Amino acid sequence: MCTPLNSAIDWQGNTLWLLDQRALPVDTRWLECTHVDQVNEAIQTMVVRGAPAIGIAAAYGVVLSAIAHRAASTIDPIIDDCARLAQSRPTAVNLQWAIDRMLGVLKKHSAPQPAIDALVHEAEAIHREDIENNLTLAEHGAAFLAQQEPASFAVMTHCNTGALATGGHGTALGIIQTAWSRGVIDHVVVNETRPWMQGARLTAWELQQSGISMALQTEGAAGLTFSSGKTRWLIVGADRIAANGDVANKIGTYTLAIAARHHGMRVMVAAPISTFDLSIPDGSHIPIETRSEDELFYQGGTRIAPDGIRAFNPAFDITPHTLIDALVTEQGVIETPCREKIENHVKV
Amino acid sequence: MCTPLNSAIDWQGNTLWLLDQRALPVDTRWLECTHVDQVNEAIQTMVVRGAPAIGIAAAYGVVLSAIAHRAASTIDPIIDDCARLAQSRPTAVNLQWAIDRMLGVLKKHSAPQPAIDALVHEAEAIHREDIENNLTLAEHGAAFLAQQEPASFAVMTHCNTGALATGGHGTALGIIQTAWSRGVIDHVVVNETRPWMQGARLTAWELQQSGISMALQTEGAAGLTFSSGKTRWLIVGADRIAANGDVANKIGTYTLAIAARHHGMRVMVAAPISTFDLSIPDGSHIPIETRSEDELFYQGGTRIAPDGIRAFNPAFDITPHTLIDALVTEQGVIETPCREKIENHVKV
Repeated sequence: MCTPLNSAIDWQGNTLWLLDQRALPVDTRWLECTHVDQVNEAIQTMVVRGAPAIGIAAAYGVVLSAIAHRAASTIDPIIDDCARLAQSRPTAVNLQWAIDRMLGVLKKHSAPQPAIDALVHEAEAIHREDIENNLTLAEHGAAFLAQQEPASFAVMTHCNTGALATGGHGTALGIIQTAWSRGVIDHVVVNETRPWMQGARLTAWELQQSGISMALQTEGAAGLTFSSGKTRWLIVGADRIAANGDVANKIGTYTLAIAARHHGMRVMVAAPISTFDLSIPDGSHIPIETRSEDELFYQGGTRIAPDGIRAFNPAFDITPHTLIDALVTEQGVIETPCREKIENHVKV
Repeated sequence: MCTPLNSAIDWQGNTLWLLDQRALPVDTRWLECTHVDQVNEAIQTMVVRGAPAIGIAAAYGVVLSAIAHRAASTIDPIIDDCARLAQSRPTAVNLQWAIDRMLGVLKKHSAPQPAIDALVHEAEAIHREDIENNLTLAEHGAAFLAQQEPASFAVMTHCNTGALATGGHGTALGIIQTAWSRGVIDHVVVNETRPWMQGARLTAWELQQSGISMALQTEGAAGLTFSSGKTRWLIVGADRIAANGDVANKIGTYTLAIAARHHGMRVMVAAPISTFDLSIPDGSHIPIETRSEDELFYQGGTRIAPDGIRAFNPAFDITPHTLIDALVTEQGVIETPCREKIENHVKV
C-alpha cells in the first residue's frame, strides 16, 4: 500500500483502499471498498474528498460495479451505477469527467465481463495521469512564482489541495511544495477551513510531513494577516471552472479573494484541465452543494448551537475570474483568465 | 437572580454571580465569585466576555478586593488588585475605563472599609448605566436603520454583542433586537465566530429566545451570502475605538467589512462612549490580544490538528474607519466617522 503522502487512494487486487480523511491526522485508517455503493458512500461522507481524488475514486468505483455485475448480459446495471456515482457530490466536475471516461471504455463492450480489464486499465490511467498532470502543473506554477517579486515570500492557502485531495502531489499544495523546495515560498499560512477543518487536519499535516514552515489560523484572521503585508499570494484549488474562468472552490475562497485583492495581494488557482466545464458559461450556473446543518451544530459529537435554529452550510462558493490573477493547469499559466484565453488554453 | 437574557452579571449580598458563557447554550451554569482573583480568572478564561461585560465584572471585582482587604490600613492592596484586573485582557478599553471609575471612588478614601459602600454603589451605577446606554444606543441605531432602503432587510452580525456581552440589552445585538421589533430588520445572518463560537453558542441563543429569524453560517460563507444581495448591513460591536474611528473588534470583523464594502453593503459599529480611547490616534496602536494556539488545535477536548505545528490566534482585528458607514453610541449616530466627528461626538 502506498504511504499516505503519495496517495490516499490505492487499488490492489480488485479492492479499492481509501485513506479515511475524516480521521486524519489523529488516526491513519484505510477503508476497504469492494462494492461501488461503498465508494458512493465514501464520497458522500467525505472519507475521500478533493475534486481530483473524487474523480479517481469514482473511476475505481465503476470497476467495482463491473466486477459485481460480471455475470450480467448487458452493461446497463453499470451505467445505472455510474449515474448514481455522478450524483454523489454535485459541484466537482472531475467526478463526471472521470465517469464519462469510464463510460467511454465501458460502451465499447456489450457485457461487463469482457470490459473489466479495460476498465481497470482506464481507472489506473486516470489515477496515474492525475499525478503526472499535478507534477507538470506544479512546475508551471512554481516557475511562474519564481519570476515574481520578492525573491521569496509567504503564501496563504485554503482547504486541502495536496496529495490527499488528488491522485498525488496535489494542485495548489503541489505548487507550494515545489516552490518551497526551490526557496521561492518561505512560509505558508493555512486557514483551518470551517466546517470540515481540512486546513487544520490535512493541509497542516501534509506541510508538516514535508518540513514546510507554516502557521494555522482561522478564516477570520485573513484580513489581519493580509494587512501585515507578509503574504503575497493566495493559492487555492478548484472544484469546477466555468468557461469564463469563474471558479467554484471550498467555501471561504471568495471572501479570501476579495480580501486579497483589497490588499493588493494576488490570487492563483491551480487545477487540472479536467476541472474545466466549458458547457457552463459562468459561475452563476455552477451547482453549489449545500451540506447538512449539523456540520455547524456539532463539534466532535457535542452540540454547540441551540436546538431548533437554522444554518446555511454551502460547501463551495464562486470566485469570479476578475479576482483571479493566475490560473495554472498542466498546460501552463493563464494570467488574468477570461473566456477567450481559457478557450485557447483548453483546446491546446 | 436575573434571568440570563436580562444580564449575565448579578451582584447579590457581596457575591458576584457570572453566567458561565463557555457552557452556553447547552448548560446554564452560574459561577460564584467571592474573591477578586476569581473575577480576574473568569475574565481571562472567558467565563465573562464582551467589552462592556468585562468592564462591569471588573468593577464588581474591585468591590470584592475592597471587602477582602477591609482590615487593611491603606487602599494600596486594592490598587494592586486593580492593576492586575486591568491586565486580565488587553484589547477591550472598557475594562480600564471601569477600573478607572472605581479607582476614582476608591481614592476618595484612605482605607478600604469606609470605601466599600461607595464602591458597591459605583459598580452598580456602571452596570445600570450600561443597560441604560444600550437602550438609548439601540434607539439611535434602530431609528437610523428605519430611514434606510428598503423598508425591511436582512443584516449580518459577528460574535456576540447581546445582553450576555454587556450589562443588558446589548450593543449591536441591541440595535438588531429593537429594529426587529419594529419590522425594520427581517432576518439575521449570524457568523459562528471561530474559534470561540460566540455566534453559534451565544448570539444564536439570544436571537432564538427573542423569536428573531436567523441562520447560522461559517465566516467563510460571508462573501457568498453578500453576493446574494439579501443582507444590507453588517452590524457589529467594538472592543476599542481609536480617536480616528478605527475599530478593534472580534477577529474576522475586518475581513467581513472588506467583503461588505466590496458588495456595496454598509457597515455599522455599535458601542458605548466608554469604548472610545481618544489617547490612541489610530488602530495601529491598539494592542491586539493573541490567545493560546490550543484554541485552534482542540475541539471539545479532542485534538484535531497535528502535534507540533504553530498557529496564529489573534482575538481581535482592526477595521479602519474608512470601511465604517455608521458608528452608533448612546449619544447618537456618527456617519462616515473620522477624527473630527468623533472628537465632537465624545465631547457632547
